[in-house]
Amino acid sequence: MPALKLTDFAARIVWLGTVPEARENIRSAPREVIELSYAGMAGEMHSGLTRPSCVRVKTQYPNGTEIANTRQLSIVSTEELAEIAQRMGLDAIDPAWLGASIVVEGIPDFTHVPPSARLQGPDGASLVIDMHNRPCLYPAREIDKDHPGSGPKFKSAARGRRGVTAWVEREGHMALGDTLRLFVPDQRAWAPKR
Amino acid sequence: MPALKLTDFAARIVWLGTVPEARENIRSAPREVIELSYAGMAGEMHSGLTRPSCVRVKTQYPNGTEIANTRQLSIVSTEELAEIAQRMGLDAIDPAWLGASIVVEGIPDFTHVPPSARLQGPDGASLVIDMHNRPCLYPAREIDKDHPGSGPKFKSAARGRRGVTAWVEREGHMALGDTLRLFVPDQRAWAPKR
Repeated sequence: MPALKLTDFAARIVWLGTVPEARENIRSAPREVIELSYAGMAGEMHSGLTRPSCVRVKTQYPNGTEIANTRQLSIVSTEELAEIAQRMGLDAIDPAWLGASIVVEGIPDFTHVPPSARLQGPDGASLVIDMHNRPCLYPAREIDKDHPGSGPKFKSAARGRRGVTAWVEREGHMALGDTLRLFVPDQRAWAPKR
Repeated sequence: MPALKLTDFAARIVWLGTVPEARENIRSAPREVIELSYAGMAGEMHSGLTRPSCVRVKTQYPNGTEIANTRQLSIVSTEELAEIAQRMGLDAIDPAWLGASIVVEGIPDFTHVPPSARLQGPDGASLVIDMHNRPCLYPAREIDKDHPGSGPKFKSAARGRRGVTAWVEREGHMALGDTLRLFVPDQRAWAPKR
């Protein structure tokens, strides 16, 4: 009796990117295929079975604490990037600005897909969605380089549309044009009634 | 800006157990302290950075596929064990029957705590809750050995009260009497509107 339920939503991969380990900024470079191991994407800035904790988890860990790496990949959606662009008065958002790993198309309200959902590719490779991502200031810097003056508009425009972070549950490959199946935890909302 | 929110719920550890690697059945044996590494609990049946996939994930993986191990620990609550016992007409449920790793007290509706929530102990050791667990037939066999005839009542009595599965995000120790802090993803429900 599986605890994960297959949804009828499918996500098509429309963009892939990796952030080089020796990076100058957060930008990712476009790729046609990514290789996924338990440590994430090979030769990538965010890869690793573990990572030093950052400010995002400061309520749990002093900065730099070694923790399991649930932020191996950053996944965003075409639909939400278009909404961000519209709110910023830009024609489009280049996923490279965000350091994105994967851009998918076809899952409505993608940023709020339930935590612990799984995205699975044609060869069985599978990603665990940890939870939504929060806009930080780094993409604003990149946007401002290409569109001077627009950077500061990013954070509020991207709130609730910044996609999710994910990590590898099963190794394999994902390629441009692949269709990913979406599984979500088959359970009702928490009702602590306090 | 953290994506995990500290709740005002705290869980006290009232029981700990491990399932020996050379096991005859699913029973766990009581412990006073557990040591947590990224592979789970040392010398334990369910430990491992990876595991062979089981029937619970058969919609995603052929049986025996190597996947990341998000089922390192089984956590149940005192309150829900009491409800199961009442529904089965027993005085109490021995967590050992369920192969439980941790029994906590103080979190209402524990089984439905949001997926990707974190439980953190006093030394910083932290567990990621993958999602709710589903009752299987093995505990029924153990219950039937101690209370002949009661086993078959387990599965329906335990539905929605079987606790959660979890894995280690930060290494450390947890001991009887420790209080765990509960963090949950700070996000609204998914609204795909289809």
